[in-house]
Amino acid sequence: MIETNGYAIHEAGTDFKSFNFERRDVGPHDILIEILYAGICHSDIHQARAEWEPIIPSVFPMVPGHEIVGRVSRVGANVTKFKDGDLAGIGCFVDSCRDCPACEGGIEQYCIKGSAQTYNSTEMDRVTPTYGGYSKNYVVDEKYALKVQEGQDLKGVAPLLCAGITTYSPLRRWKVGPGQKVAVAGLGGLGHMGVKIAAAMGAEVTVLSTSPTKEKDARALGATSFLNVRDEEAVKAARGRFDLLLDTISAVHDYGAYLNMVTLNGVMVVVGMPTESVPFHAASLIGGNKVLAGSLIGGIPETQEMLDFCAEHNITSDVEVIDPSRIAEAYDRTVKADVRYRFVIDMKNA
Amino acid sequence: MIETNGYAIHEAGTDFKSFNFERRDVGPHDILIEILYAGICHSDIHQARAEWEPIIPSVFPMVPGHEIVGRVSRVGANVTKFKDGDLAGIGCFVDSCRDCPACEGGIEQYCIKGSAQTYNSTEMDRVTPTYGGYSKNYVVDEKYALKVQEGQDLKGVAPLLCAGITTYSPLRRWKVGPGQKVAVAGLGGLGHMGVKIAAAMGAEVTVLSTSPTKEKDARALGATSFLNVRDEEAVKAARGRFDLLLDTISAVHDYGAYLNMVTLNGVMVVVGMPTESVPFHAASLIGGNKVLAGSLIGGIPETQEMLDFCAEHNITSDVEVIDPSRIAEAYDRTVKADVRYRFVIDMKNA
Repeated sequence: MIETNGYAIHEAGTDFKSFNFERRDVGPHDILIEILYAGICHSDIHQARAEWEPIIPSVFPMVPGHEIVGRVSRVGANVTKFKDGDLAGIGCFVDSCRDCPACEGGIEQYCIKGSAQTYNSTEMDRVTPTYGGYSKNYVVDEKYALKVQEGQDLKGVAPLLCAGITTYSPLRRWKVGPGQKVAVAGLGGLGHMGVKIAAAMGAEVTVLSTSPTKEKDARALGATSFLNVRDEEAVKAARGRFDLLLDTISAVHDYGAYLNMVTLNGVMVVVGMPTESVPFHAASLIGGNKVLAGSLIGGIPETQEMLDFCAEHNITSDVEVIDPSRIAEAYDRTVKADVRYRFVIDMKNA
Repeated sequence: MIETNGYAIHEAGTDFKSFNFERRDVGPHDILIEILYAGICHSDIHQARAEWEPIIPSVFPMVPGHEIVGRVSRVGANVTKFKDGDLAGIGCFVDSCRDCPACEGGIEQYCIKGSAQTYNSTEMDRVTPTYGGYSKNYVVDEKYALKVQEGQDLKGVAPLLCAGITTYSPLRRWKVGPGQKVAVAGLGGLGHMGVKIAAAMGAEVTVLSTSPTKEKDARALGATSFLNVRDEEAVKAARGRFDLLLDTISAVHDYGAYLNMVTLNGVMVVVGMPTESVPFHAASLIGGNKVLAGSLIGGIPETQEMLDFCAEHNITSDVEVIDPSRIAEAYDRTVKADVRYRFVIDMKNA
């Protein structure tokens, strides 16, 4: 076993503490990654605070973190994709059953038997706990690790592993491209990636937000328009405007009001998950042959495609780097949306 | 003008009475259709009883009926699609703006300026009222009339103009075919057409219903399975089973429970419209990359395609034919779902 160290919560709502634990030895198909940066995803906070129970139980001690970039320091005998010194990334899951239709189709996030999450989960043996990226290193099967190109701003690459793929996947599935009008609802960690990626795909992007102060940022990120959704007249005027609306809002909101801004035959994709049900009327869909779709991160092949796309288009996340001692502060500020747009923990000297 | 006669409601909730009114003269592009059969659609009842106000106002006197089959008795000078004596059909709309993207794309039901509905509406002049198929004849531009092939059971063809196209269109859009598992939720006027059409497209069809007594009918219509949705164990066992779920239920119901029976990447299409909003949780879609879509009847080209498909596959609606004097009784029985599966008014001798 490999002795290591990370930052763990030992009980819901308490502070992070330094935590010594073990990683498995590097097997023939494994790589050991020395972690450089770990992004703070809002889902880390939900799980650290046990807010998703009972649907997703929180298991303690918990070392969160599933937006991981680091450098390979050891490779197993049969590893072919990585060599010592390569950059590598890990996203939301680190293993899956490997033989269900989802795994065979490269959408391992939907593994029928349930994939092994990067943290707050177990390996596929359903026994060994997984500990995430707020730590010095990670041992992962190379199949579930991503290639990261050199020459990028690595602290901004880490959030691509969750926020990047979560927005990239539906934009690809629904064939966003030049000539299309895309709306991104909500300008947070997910939304700001959605704007950058949709713009890089050639779409004309509008940000829908309740915060007019974000207009300047929206335009800097690549949006050509900004719509304050509290401005009823502006919302009314936007009826039927967008070919695709990417909804990253995780607060309860009225899907019907957003669907009304989607064009005939258009699509709204929800990637933010409100904790509660919201009232929904079928007329919002029937009246314009519209589609409401969901999307959950992405599989390994598509995550690699996204990383390569972002490298090619020079896309990274806008981040604020913190030392591990400031995780608690970062959590509080993330909940208040007081970050533009992602906290990333510098794990190099942790 | 052409003097004619039909059956009208003069005030919400009152009885049908014989009603003399005028149709426009047959213009150069028009045809005059002597109506043989007019189906009774549940939407006729909603409008006759003013149940959709204020969204869709009810205008009286109202002659309902938008599932119309008849024989052409006069053609305008420039008519090319029909000749005297041809069979013809009329569906839910009789005109539209003809130059918006929807009209140009052959999805005139979504005409951006609003199409002219077959009844309880006006011509595109927004002044002249339209009266529907519970009448002796109809004058319609040939562009908005459908060709009906000879040699079919015409009373069963009438409901294809609404119930048929409403179910055919989403089954085509979502590419239903051999090897696919399709569920049809609700076995009424729409549902029974959905079963027949999906089976003819080669899918393996399951009927989802709260009425176990309908199992025999479901199988006779072409379903290979039947699932009583009140049987919680059976519903649980059907998790992720269907590639496409066609939801024809117009009562308030839990979309999440039905989406749970849809497979990864699968689609649920709602064509029934509950009058109220229902609670909906984003997790129902996100967890399996699923799609919830709406669909509203179909355009003229697709309605013609559907009629030709049904003629080729010998598909008609299962109907109970009534004399116009029994419309009120048929309405009451339709509301109680006491019809298998559509009332059709015999207008030949009306």
